[in-house]
Amino acid sequence: MTIELYAQRIIERCEILARYSEEPERLTRRFATPAMQQVNALVAEWMHAATMAVRQDQAGNIIGRYAALDSAGKRPQTLLLGSHLDTVRDAGKYDGILGVILALALVERLHEQGTHLPFALEVIGFADEEGMRYHHPFIGSTALAGTFALPALQLLDSDGITMASALQEFGGDPEHIQAARRDPSDLLGYCEIHIEQGPVLETEQLPVGIVTAITGQNLCEVSFRGRAGHAGTVPMSNRQDALCAAASFVLAAEQGARAIPGMVATIGQLQVQPGASNVIPGTVTLSLDLRHPDDSEREQFYQQLHKEAQKIASERQMQLEWHTCSSEQTVACSPQLTQLLTSAVKQQGYRALLLPSGAGHDAAIMAELTEICMLFVRCYKGISHHPDEAVNTADISETITVMENFLQLLAHHTQEERHDEPV
Amino acid sequence: MTIELYAQRIIERCEILARYSEEPERLTRRFATPAMQQVNALVAEWMHAATMAVRQDQAGNIIGRYAALDSAGKRPQTLLLGSHLDTVRDAGKYDGILGVILALALVERLHEQGTHLPFALEVIGFADEEGMRYHHPFIGSTALAGTFALPALQLLDSDGITMASALQEFGGDPEHIQAARRDPSDLLGYCEIHIEQGPVLETEQLPVGIVTAITGQNLCEVSFRGRAGHAGTVPMSNRQDALCAAASFVLAAEQGARAIPGMVATIGQLQVQPGASNVIPGTVTLSLDLRHPDDSEREQFYQQLHKEAQKIASERQMQLEWHTCSSEQTVACSPQLTQLLTSAVKQQGYRALLLPSGAGHDAAIMAELTEICMLFVRCYKGISHHPDEAVNTADISETITVMENFLQLLAHHTQEERHDEPV
Repeated sequence: MTIELYAQRIIERCEILARYSEEPERLTRRFATPAMQQVNALVAEWMHAATMAVRQDQAGNIIGRYAALDSAGKRPQTLLLGSHLDTVRDAGKYDGILGVILALALVERLHEQGTHLPFALEVIGFADEEGMRYHHPFIGSTALAGTFALPALQLLDSDGITMASALQEFGGDPEHIQAARRDPSDLLGYCEIHIEQGPVLETEQLPVGIVTAITGQNLCEVSFRGRAGHAGTVPMSNRQDALCAAASFVLAAEQGARAIPGMVATIGQLQVQPGASNVIPGTVTLSLDLRHPDDSEREQFYQQLHKEAQKIASERQMQLEWHTCSSEQTVACSPQLTQLLTSAVKQQGYRALLLPSGAGHDAAIMAELTEICMLFVRCYKGISHHPDEAVNTADISETITVMENFLQLLAHHTQEERHDEPV
Repeated sequence: MTIELYAQRIIERCEILARYSEEPERLTRRFATPAMQQVNALVAEWMHAATMAVRQDQAGNIIGRYAALDSAGKRPQTLLLGSHLDTVRDAGKYDGILGVILALALVERLHEQGTHLPFALEVIGFADEEGMRYHHPFIGSTALAGTFALPALQLLDSDGITMASALQEFGGDPEHIQAARRDPSDLLGYCEIHIEQGPVLETEQLPVGIVTAITGQNLCEVSFRGRAGHAGTVPMSNRQDALCAAASFVLAAEQGARAIPGMVATIGQLQVQPGASNVIPGTVTLSLDLRHPDDSEREQFYQQLHKEAQKIASERQMQLEWHTCSSEQTVACSPQLTQLLTSAVKQQGYRALLLPSGAGHDAAIMAELTEICMLFVRCYKGISHHPDEAVNTADISETITVMENFLQLLAHHTQEERHDEPV
């Protein structure tokens, strides 16, 4: 079967999986739901057909193992490939799913060719990355990486069902979820294929890009407290309009971020109190999301914006509240694996575009367990978390080849390492 | 009884009326509710005690008439005094109420002195000005002025009760609401006393101010439509962030209004879509409320802001929607009555501060029926529509005296006019 047919099959399978949803007219598939059960079952079937050994682990992750080439009694190492099979509400078909199905196709290609690699391949479909059901993301990958926080098992979903009981019902094992942790000494690394979720590859006219790091993030909640008043009776000079202060801050964040290459600043939420057309805003509360792969550069800009907010509040005689919600450090990809991915892309005749991932991924969690690398696939207009999410078949073909190059380079690399070992 | 004791009684009565509420812990008194019924009954009692002829009209307004001095068989004219007795949700004690109770005290003073004026005085407590129950303001004054829109009788409140049936239940007469209209030939005019609802009198250290006009208003809804996207993956240069566009507009409106004396511009509502901290705002919808007593100046600024919004949208490659919700012309107060009020203030030794009313009032509606004038009373920090609304007793005393001066000046004026009449 040609690579093009494999690419078509990958798209078809993503479309098939998109039918398994909790909601009739749109794709919503949360952790440990019947829709996830159906998807795991179908993926398991496809894995079996490719002669993989399939199991669902304690956290509900579906895992297929394709054996290594017989390595003369030596215990072979394992390369993990994967992404997640859960979705956000009203999701697209490819975010997460593509990484699992494309990895599976790589195994199918090996099986079709009757080939094995000098290392085992495991394809993982993580049970939860988006965190929609329990407002707690990365259930699947934290379990595998051994960083799952046990108290989360007591979280309740909107129907009052604990995570523990949902997982039990799903066929997982909440009491032994820690046993899902993998032994890092068995692993060569973890490689994740994912749609870019941004417009860079489209702009650069490239089918794939190589991720250098999963960008760190500062998230905070900012409130400007001025004074509400009647829209008709308070002269402009007597106002302490919290929305005007917030507007100055929004533009300062935009202008500041524009001046720093690679920086993104987003105010995605903004609430006006009291919020009536004839009342001057008394309080405005907004979210600030800052991302940049260089932790110190980002932290410095974060402090700069805090000072800017203080200045705006003081000039307008208002109170400022600045509450840091979270501060995530940047997670670097493995230089070695990323170098191999770079060579694999160049082998296919493409410029190797290195870019950070502004979005969070299972790979960032897996980095606590093993070496990671990530390959981004161009997506339509950079759209994600939306039904319009799309990839094109030609790009999927290119991705398959790039990944096959990568696997060959890694095989060569591990063989060399083996030869270098003292006999 | 001294003027000071009258002033104290006015404050006490406003406090008593504030206990009649639809809600246990705060003052909310909407049109034709049991709370309004209790308040009308109590005000009627006070009116009766001052020998007034009391009736509730077809629209539910409570009206007390204090007869004119015997005028030798000639049909006397009538001066209307009043304001409204309904409130907003979680209201203060004085907005509207003060104007009714203070007018009543003027009659009580005349009665105590055994005096009548050469014209009749009617004190009106309007049944609805705020429009809380049916999202339809000025039910009381439009009925009196003959501009009540009959289809409004079919409006439903949040419990599904039509205005007609609420009014019927209240003791009004929805079928003959048009009969509430007064004959303008009987009227000398309408004078409304009201708290300022703004900070000007406090700033100017004056107990009262004379209203020149009820300011016109442009109200519109503006939407900037950009493109939503992932907060981590879309570079600043690729964004069409609707909130950044809206922020530019908010500041343009503020800056523009500051540059035009007497202009106020308020963006009191602003909604961000989709409204998640990690999603770039795709659409922002906001309200714009513009007020200025000069209609052409306000209209010109309105057009200028529309152009500004177009410029912002075009520079940011976004779509703009600009929907005019309403456009109210400025209503001028009567030059003659306002001149008398001015003299009355000066007689009391105060500078006569003339100012427009940025808020809407029953007086603006009554202007379609008869000559109007308005006297503002200083209020604490300009606060209104809030439980912190407050006035001080000394200011109420001054207001009583100013109004007594006004009534005497008007009596003198009408006598002079009578003498001028051909015999």
